[in-house]
Amino acid sequence: MAVHRSEYRVLFGDTDGMGIVYNANYLRIFEMARTEWSRSLLRKPKDMVDNDMYLVVVNAHINYHSPARYDDLLAMECWIPKAKVKRASFHFAYRVTHKDSGQIVATGYTVHALTTKEGKLKRMPKDLHGQVACLAIDEIPDVPSE
Amino acid sequence: MAVHRSEYRVLFGDTDGMGIVYNANYLRIFEMARTEWSRSLLRKPKDMVDNDMYLVVVNAHINYHSPARYDDLLAMECWIPKAKVKRASFHFAYRVTHKDSGQIVATGYTVHALTTKEGKLKRMPKDLHGQVACLAIDEIPDVPSE
Amino acid sequence: MAVHRSEYRVLFGDTDGMGIVYNANYLRIFEMARTEWSRSLLRKPKDMVDNDMYLVVVNAHINYHSPARYDDLLAMECWIPKAKVKRASFHFAYRVTHKDSGQIVATGYTVHALTTKEGKLKRMPKDLHGQVACLAIDEIPDVPSE
Amino acid sequence: MAVHRSEYRVLFGDTDGMGIVYNANYLRIFEMARTEWSRSLLRKPKDMVDNDMYLVVVNAHINYHSPARYDDLLAMECWIPKAKVKRASFHFAYRVTHKDSGQIVATGYTVHALTTKEGKLKRMPKDLHGQVACLAIDEIPDVPSE
Repeated sequence: MAVHRSEYRVLFGDTDGMGIVYNANYLRIFEMARTEWSRSLLRKPKDMVDNDMYLVVVNAHINYHSPARYDDLLAMECWIPKAKVKRASFHFAYRVTHKDSGQIVATGYTVHALTTKEGKLKRMPKDLHGQVACLAIDEIPDVPSE
Repeated sequence: MAVHRSEYRVLFGDTDGMGIVYNANYLRIFEMARTEWSRSLLRKPKDMVDNDMYLVVVNAHINYHSPARYDDLLAMECWIPKAKVKRASFHFAYRVTHKDSGQIVATGYTVHALTTKEGKLKRMPKDLHGQVACLAIDEIPDVPSE
Repeated sequence: MAVHRSEYRVLFGDTDGMGIVYNANYLRIFEMARTEWSRSLLRKPKDMVDNDMYLVVVNAHINYHSPARYDDLLAMECWIPKAKVKRASFHFAYRVTHKDSGQIVATGYTVHALTTKEGKLKRMPKDLHGQVACLAIDEIPDVPSE
Repeated sequence: MAVHRSEYRVLFGDTDGMGIVYNANYLRIFEMARTEWSRSLLRKPKDMVDNDMYLVVVNAHINYHSPARYDDLLAMECWIPKAKVKRASFHFAYRVTHKDSGQIVATGYTVHALTTKEGKLKRMPKDLHGQVACLAIDEIPDVPSE
């Protein structure tokens, strides 16, 4: 199943004055998760940008379920929900949990379109679109939908 | 009208390899906007935390309309939408524009609940809730709703 | 005297699990200080990059004197030490203090060279070098030297 | 030999408008390197903070040798230089290279003291100091000294 799993260890610099990962940093964690999804299942991220293909974020949504603290080991899951694959855009969905306990830390999704480095919208090449559609999966349980 | 306006100058460190403000950094910009809203209209942010009141982010939503680049001067608007003031939570809504042209850069909202520093949910004090309700406004045009 | 003074209000996102500004964030604060130095005294930062002139950081040094906390108002001072203006590089020096008390928070300096956007070293144009030399000052007291 | 080696993959969010890792982010990379050094050789970082022991950064120094770009795989080396182990402070030294080519990206060091979470200086416990001294090594070649 095309859900990619990777890990992230919380840095002290990720936490804020409440001792928990600062809200903005989950978008970095999401980037990490989808980059590894891409490397593992689709294309090397570097090959994408070398071919002037940038999957820019059109909008982003994050639900903060429970805090993550310094040195916590997080499990990141990333996938493409089938229902959200459109001609010109698609979603990445994310679930971040505590690696050990499985407790959900954050969920969310980001909507992506393909552009050049200059930010010009680019028609998604047929092979890329086909691969994305092929890797997309039905919504897995307990994850956010739009 | 209880819309607070402040400004932010884009740092080089805010931009990414596309030369535009990285998606995660808008959540910092949103924090800046609501902190200044609070200082100007409600309470000094420091007084809040000194009284062990933390307005934690429960979920966050960002729409990226057009890019902002290094050294751009951004105008940030922040307000509380009236329809979203609940007993235990409320929204901050944001609109970030290019100061000069008025072009919209990003919009979004964050949902907040009151907790202690330890993250324990806290009943919102009546006077605080009353002030929030009082400062809340009808949705201003062109902004995202849930 | 060519010391530029600006202000910065600490965000919650700047602090770490100790409740103080995370060490890396001072390099962002330094960038802010030297950008405003440049805008005020030398050239608009945007004009620099539009002319493919990037003052890259060759090395950086930070001394952490006392902590800064959420919502603290910081005063940033930035200047170019005269003794450090070389043909191909120069220093920016920084002092960050608590605006109210004057207590020193951090000092430091960064060494800069001129490059293109691609990172190629570029001879510093005579007029730019002349202006930099002209604006450089003798070391102000209580600041770090190499 | 007590040099810890770990890896880091550059995020798009780490890069700036020049397409290279932003100068401040190396202090995050350094934190990552010394955290893994500690986990591997000394103590779990979490055990440290659970015992109210924080190895705060007193000063930091970074040399930027060559740029790192999006999706580059970096090798991080971290060690404690023997000559810098004092009664109340010690150094971590770092070398970041391109994993494949071995080309040096950045070097630097940070000086640390032990404090409580409140930032109060704390005498280093004898066993901790002994372990640090024991793990310290002679300067490895091509690295920065004070």
